[in-house]
Parts: sequence; structure tokens; C-alpha cells
Amino acid sequence: MRVKVEEKVLSKNDELASALRQRFVRHEVFCLNLISSPGSGKTALLERTLEALPKTAKVAALTGDVQTENDARRLAGAGFPVKQITTGGTCHLDASMVGRALEDWDLDGIDILFVENVGNLVCPTSYDLGEHAKIVVFSVAEGEDKPLKYPAIFAVSELCIINKVDLLPYVPFDIERAVANVHQVHPGMAVVQTSCTKSLGLDAWLAWLERRRAHAFPK
Amino acid sequence: MRVKVEEKVLSKNDELASALRQRFVRHEVFCLNLISSPGSGKTALLERTLEALPKTAKVAALTGDVQTENDARRLAGAGFPVKQITTGGTCHLDASMVGRALEDWDLDGIDILFVENVGNLVCPTSYDLGEHAKIVVFSVAEGEDKPLKYPAIFAVSELCIINKVDLLPYVPFDIERAVANVHQVHPGMAVVQTSCTKSLGLDAWLAWLERRRAHAFPK
Repeated sequence: MRVKVEEKVLSKNDELASALRQRFVRHEVFCLNLISSPGSGKTALLERTLEALPKTAKVAALTGDVQTENDARRLAGAGFPVKQITTGGTCHLDASMVGRALEDWDLDGIDILFVENVGNLVCPTSYDLGEHAKIVVFSVAEGEDKPLKYPAIFAVSELCIINKVDLLPYVPFDIERAVANVHQVHPGMAVVQTSCTKSLGLDAWLAWLERRRAHAFPK
Repeated sequence: MRVKVEEKVLSKNDELASALRQRFVRHEVFCLNLISSPGSGKTALLERTLEALPKTAKVAALTGDVQTENDARRLAGAGFPVKQITTGGTCHLDASMVGRALEDWDLDGIDILFVENVGNLVCPTSYDLGEHAKIVVFSVAEGEDKPLKYPAIFAVSELCIINKVDLLPYVPFDIERAVANVHQVHPGMAVVQTSCTKSLGLDAWLAWLERRRAHAFPK
């Protein structure tokens, strides 16, 4: 019974996500869905990313949370369009929430759309938002076993960002084993190591972003 | 439609949880449900706790994960009964999973039962496991805004453990503001600060445990 209803909810979501994907393709919006545990540093990563992009870049961000508009406030500092989606209890973003948030935005004015999901390594995995790629973020403070414990999100994401590497001297985290765990779940997966407080690895992340966007919309 | 079915699932869970609660009371099993994000240190906290208890203590642990039996292996080192519940995709433990895991355990042989939930700050909040109290754990690496962003679990838990305080010199985390955020969501909530790698604050946690158990089963 539970499974059947979940399948219905997901198939309705898949329809809406498919419509979103078609809109993104038509308007050449490159959309990324960032997924992680609470506190892995998604917002900080987006802050650094928005700061690094030229002011003329056509970039926008949607940021999801159960409560508060804190993240939208933080991201608005960079001067790009930002909107908070407050789910009010729901543990993930779905395609209808993203569709509603985009209603009053002109997609022709957006080249890159970042969607920061609710902090949750499990549920957002099942909800397609029409994005070009999912990105999974985890921090070295969380432990190198996370890919093995939450394999689904690592299996479906195109890029894994291992964040807060500035904390490596202070936590029991073996970075080589972490990368091996990522590759055990998703062979050949792209992995970038970053620190948003110490500005490490951001070039590699921005290079991935540019390459992946060119792949989605070749000139 | 979604909401109605969720209500049904929850009301079925509440029935099973109520039956579990009655069994816990009848057999004088003090049961705690530990909830946190992935990687906040629930397993490390339980490792230190089991090590600190006398070998004669009648303590047991159930540990939930989407995949892997890593946590049960870690906890088994202390020599107490431990069982892994692998949910295979489900983002929370429910009362039926706990009931099944307890089937072949003699509850009269257990005074304290720790249940380590799946790493997730949202979904486990809604699923009563018949426990005496929920405990929410978050680490200083996750940021002091977590109580405001995920208020439900902080509102329903009796104790908040702020873990990994050994990392305070290396992360942008204002501990006073974090405690104020906890109290904004849950006025007067008990807060204990711990580091499992540096063995800090464990006495305060063990004292809370003893007090709360005596409150549940006064001699």
C-alpha cells in the first residue's frame, strides 16, 4: 500500500520534472541539484561560487529548507537572483515546488540555475527536479563511510564534492579511503575536494561546472 | 491524498509504538531514540557510552542505517548485545522494524536500550518507536543554525547533545548562539556538549542518562 502510493507520488513528480527539463533545455538553463546532509556546506559552496562568477553572469539559485530563509539571505549577498523554498516540514524538494518558485522568473535570463536541496542524504535522491545533474556534497567531519551508508545518492550523482578539507588534520578521516568508498559505489565518479573557509579546490569545481555546462549546451 | 496516506501510515506506526512502549514499561527497559544528521557522531557517542558502563550493566543497542552493518560491528566491540537494522532505502526507523529486531531478545535482560536512528534530521522525527525520550545530536561542524532550520526534532527531543566540540577552534561555530538557537526552538531544553574523540562532556551525558532513567523507573 505504502509502496504503491509512493510510486504514484513519484510518477506524478517524474511528469512534472520532465516538463521542467524540457523548459530548461528550451531556454538553455543549465540546472544543478545539490544534495547533502545538513551542515555539509552547500550554502557556503554556493556563496563562494557566486562570488567567483563575473557580475555579468546569468546565474540564479533556489535554496530549500524545512524552515528559515537564512540561506537565501546569505546567497543574496552576491547580487544574483535567489529564492528560498521553505518546505514547512517536507524532507526534500520536489518538481512542483521548483516549478512554482520559477513561475515569476524569466528563464531566458538564466544560464545556470543552482538548486540547493533540503539537507538530507536520503529522500531528495528519489525526487527528480528536471536538473541536468545531481551533485552530492559531504564534509570530512562526517566520516569516510558515508558513501557506503547512503549509496543511492552517490550512485545517481555525477560529481562528489568532499568539503571542509581544511579540517582533515583534526578529524579521523582517511581521504584516500573516502575516495575509494565513493568509487566502490560509483566507479569513475568525478570527485573534487574543497574548503570553502580556506578557498581550496574551488578552481577544480568551477572547471567541472564550465565543462559540464558546455557538454549540456555545446556551442 | 499524500497527506491522508501518510496519516494512515503514521497512525499504524503509533499503534505499534504504543504496544512497544507498554512492553518497555512492563519489562522496565529504558529506551532512548538517538536522532541526528549523518556523521554527527551518534555511533562514536554510543561507543564511548558502552565503554564507560560496567560490564555487568544490562545494556543493548539497535542501530539503523540505509546500508552496511558497520555501526553494529563498531558497537559490538564493547561486548553488549547489538543488532543492526538495515532499512534498505527507508529514511527512518519505524516501530515495526524495532519490534522485529527485538523478537529474539529477552527484554527482562535489558535495562537500557539505545536505538540509533538512520542519519536524518527530518523524517525520524515523525516516527514514534515507543522510546522514553528522543535525543538530538548535532556536531559543531554542521553550523549553529541547525536548530532553527530543523526545529521539529529539537522541539520533541528531551536532550540536545552538541558533539565534536574539540573542533570549535577550527570551525565558524558560536557555541553560545547555538545554545540560544536550541532554546529559541525548545525553551529550557537540556544541552550537553561532548567530544567523543577527546572524551569531553561524557560525565554530564552519563549523569543525564542515570537521572532520566531513575525518573522513568523510580526505585
